[in-house]
Amino acid sequence: MKIALCQLNFKVGDIEGNTLKILDLYQRAVSEEADLAVFSELAICGYSPEDLLDYPHFVKACEQALLNIAEIVEETAILIGCPTFSGLKFGKKLYNSAAFLHKGEIRKVFHKTLLPTYNIFNEYRYFEPNDQFQILEFKGHKIAVSICEDLWDIDETRYYKQSPMQKLIALEPDLMINLSGSPFSYEHIEERRDLMCRNALKYDLPLVYVNQIGANTDMIFDGGSMFIDRDGTIAEELEYFKEDFKIVNWQKGFKYSNHSHGYQNEDVELIYNAIVLGIRDYFQKSGFSKAILGLSGGLDSALVTVLAVRALGAENVLPVMLPSVYSSGHSITDSELLCKNLKIDVKRVEIQKIVDELENQLKPLFNDEVKGLTHENLQARTRGILLMAISNKLGHILLNTTNKSEAAVGYGTLYGDLCGGLSVIGDVYKTQAYRICRYINSQENVIPENILTKAPSAELRPDQKDTDSLPEYDVLDGILHAYIERFMSPDEIVELGYDGSLVNNVIKMVDRNEHKRFQVAPILRVSDKAFGRGRTMPIVGKLNS
Amino acid sequence: MKIALCQLNFKVGDIEGNTLKILDLYQRAVSEEADLAVFSELAICGYSPEDLLDYPHFVKACEQALLNIAEIVEETAILIGCPTFSGLKFGKKLYNSAAFLHKGEIRKVFHKTLLPTYNIFNEYRYFEPNDQFQILEFKGHKIAVSICEDLWDIDETRYYKQSPMQKLIALEPDLMINLSGSPFSYEHIEERRDLMCRNALKYDLPLVYVNQIGANTDMIFDGGSMFIDRDGTIAEELEYFKEDFKIVNWQKGFKYSNHSHGYQNEDVELIYNAIVLGIRDYFQKSGFSKAILGLSGGLDSALVTVLAVRALGAENVLPVMLPSVYSSGHSITDSELLCKNLKIDVKRVEIQKIVDELENQLKPLFNDEVKGLTHENLQARTRGILLMAISNKLGHILLNTTNKSEAAVGYGTLYGDLCGGLSVIGDVYKTQAYRICRYINSQENVIPENILTKAPSAELRPDQKDTDSLPEYDVLDGILHAYIERFMSPDEIVELGYDGSLVNNVIKMVDRNEHKRFQVAPILRVSDKAFGRGRTMPIVGKLNS
Repeated sequence: MKIALCQLNFKVGDIEGNTLKILDLYQRAVSEEADLAVFSELAICGYSPEDLLDYPHFVKACEQALLNIAEIVEETAILIGCPTFSGLKFGKKLYNSAAFLHKGEIRKVFHKTLLPTYNIFNEYRYFEPNDQFQILEFKGHKIAVSICEDLWDIDETRYYKQSPMQKLIALEPDLMINLSGSPFSYEHIEERRDLMCRNALKYDLPLVYVNQIGANTDMIFDGGSMFIDRDGTIAEELEYFKEDFKIVNWQKGFKYSNHSHGYQNEDVELIYNAIVLGIRDYFQKSGFSKAILGLSGGLDSALVTVLAVRALGAENVLPVMLPSVYSSGHSITDSELLCKNLKIDVKRVEIQKIVDELENQLKPLFNDEVKGLTHENLQARTRGILLMAISNKLGHILLNTTNKSEAAVGYGTLYGDLCGGLSVIGDVYKTQAYRICRYINSQENVIPENILTKAPSAELRPDQKDTDSLPEYDVLDGILHAYIERFMSPDEIVELGYDGSLVNNVIKMVDRNEHKRFQVAPILRVSDKAFGRGRTMPIVGKLNS
Repeated sequence: MKIALCQLNFKVGDIEGNTLKILDLYQRAVSEEADLAVFSELAICGYSPEDLLDYPHFVKACEQALLNIAEIVEETAILIGCPTFSGLKFGKKLYNSAAFLHKGEIRKVFHKTLLPTYNIFNEYRYFEPNDQFQILEFKGHKIAVSICEDLWDIDETRYYKQSPMQKLIALEPDLMINLSGSPFSYEHIEERRDLMCRNALKYDLPLVYVNQIGANTDMIFDGGSMFIDRDGTIAEELEYFKEDFKIVNWQKGFKYSNHSHGYQNEDVELIYNAIVLGIRDYFQKSGFSKAILGLSGGLDSALVTVLAVRALGAENVLPVMLPSVYSSGHSITDSELLCKNLKIDVKRVEIQKIVDELENQLKPLFNDEVKGLTHENLQARTRGILLMAISNKLGHILLNTTNKSEAAVGYGTLYGDLCGGLSVIGDVYKTQAYRICRYINSQENVIPENILTKAPSAELRPDQKDTDSLPEYDVLDGILHAYIERFMSPDEIVELGYDGSLVNNVIKMVDRNEHKRFQVAPILRVSDKAFGRGRTMPIVGKLNS
């Protein structure tokens, strides 16, 4: 049986556009004489449609698109993800389904059993879990169809009491097909590949695994669809971060050799690729092409500039320098050198007179000079307002350049440097940002060495350094990773070897800044635990005693 | 049996503080010789702790607090909500539990079966549903213990296949007790009261219903705990929007008369009370006392000023006028009159010179005068930056004054008038805002009549009116309510009698402004469908074709 693995980049909610892409690739599967074309989870509407699913007319349109596709399907069958109405009197109104289309009709519909509802996933918000198990019989084969999470219960630490494959195996399938919408994180690729191989081994069945690629706002999907032989060998592996198509000629009993391209867990390269895709899709899918950003002379804005240039092209990125009296000379020259290396224009707007006028107007109210944090924030917010004015005037989207370490401890000014439509590196710790810069320079030396070696500074007062108020970033990031990604208690983090009062201070900073993170742009997610929708903490409340 | 209904205002995550409140009220129950003191759902940690539940040390601390309380409990028993570890190898790691404490020990623990996971609820994110049903035997009675949603499956339109009460009724209870964490909406009180009465009738059992009160960030809880007789009569009803305590002397077979205080569904008064509580708790629970806000001369900022004064006291509210050349004379005089009526000070900062200086610095970059939307946004953002500077300097929290109609269509400037730590009326449509103002004036005439009768204007250009770019608010709000709260399709809304192209334009505005709403402050929730965590729409994607 010839099975086409169809790995596409869908736009959430764009039922019409997604249908056209599906039909286009289906024609290729037909022309290459595939028996079955497999698309990913919720392909019709893209993963994840979120609360669009609360609208009945949206789900009806998905079901109608499925019917329209079915009408076109002839000998080459399709297996494709789509939300469907459950029709249940009691229970959720929808299923997360995989529809089997053949010879003009929807022949069979399978539903997802295990509904991930944790971190960025909230499927039980919409869907009823499946409890009826059936096999797809096609071309003399018996196929166990499952949807994404349905195969993720293989370890004892998982979240479910049921196991759909345990039910399906009783029906004696000779092949597994899994339709997936599995998002990227730099720790996830190897885990996913390993887990799918273990599924093949456990059930002694070959596995066709089809994932989507592309970014939908904050969530990035990396593809990496696979055909895994029953011995746990990856016989075919599709591209990462790219649309791809491959036909697997599967014969029962045939032994396949390993054609995995062995994409490794080198986090820096993965994060780089994911973010470039994330920026590109954010712009393309919202109909924009051009970005602006504030270029401070520091590492973060330099990194975001390079990433934006790689994603959108040099002609589409406009960095703006907004120096103040506290900006050091190298901030200007380093920024200019970066832009020269990237062959992009750089603009400059002065903020000092504006800050002076703001403080002038405030002085009578304060009965005092404007100083301290208020003075620092005024500078950051003046930059924000100028960048937004340019954004308004030119129709460019402002990119936010805050990193994850800063976002964690609240080292940033709301409506100032926290402005922007998309947070590019808000899920990248400062120490990772350094490593990504080194990786970029190892490919092409564009980021001036001085940007990588000087001490980080917000330059909001004379001789300011980040280390005035924060520990060194390797220490800070160690504590943050333990707290945010490993859910460790303060005591447990101290046991890792960090100073007790430092740990408590850092955790307090994290807890106290939920209100800031609540108001920042969507963050391109590259780790297992990003700020944003995947981490919903109370804003008011006591978070650690 | 004497049952104490203990209705308290908990602070999320404040295990220590909540425990003290619980023990304090328990002592009252003891001194009034109650047999059983009933507290609300997740009382130990407050509802809802959200992702604090992902931290094992947090849940351990909750369990420890439960043990500590149990040690103190003697003859008067306690039934109280607390998260507990499930100890399951397969399945979620936690239960949403009700613990029965008596004579120094945790005697029995019940778990929630129906886990609301829709709108603002996401309980399946954390909890495993219960599937073991047991009865609490105490003082010769058999009590069916359930938790909140467990009783909400009475209608066929509900979300669940199971019915916990159907299981429990087989064990022949003579009383139902429901521990609840049921948030307020102005449409919800009557629904909840009716549903609980129907439960009593359906199962022919009296029902003790205990809810929490108080606001945790955006979610407001209104209390209204009840004792309902088996004939569906509300025999006792506790206060709304206030902590309360009442002992019900329940005798099997005794016929109780109606002591419901008949709190009616008059939305305007309910919304007023809920928002005042919401503001007060936001400040108290985050350790702040003072608020500032921008006072434009329009209806929304006038309403927020009154609400803030009622919540925090006149001495704790600082309105600031920030007029421009486009501000009309009445904007100043109306604002001054409002503040005089409220006996509060008002400050004034001029924005014109700052806007001029901003435009001065931008002109070379634009090769042009700054005009149009960019010019309008600069004014709004200059106001934002000034208000935030005052907030920084004085340690006051900035209140946001955007209403739901504006938030829906994106009629507001990010980092400008959308600034603020808390959105006070972001879930109140403009037409509702008018009605609340009329209600306030009917109690005490503080809002100048001219504010209520003049045409709404953002005053960002000469002679601007809201109706230049929006339909009349009664039409706009009608379309918005149908789309946001009733999930109607554009076609269905047109069938209500609205103009087709108008409906499409309004819906496009709603869809295109998800990115703005993503970055605004938490919104005090008063309707069944507020913007914020209860409505998670994709930002990038095609939302209606």
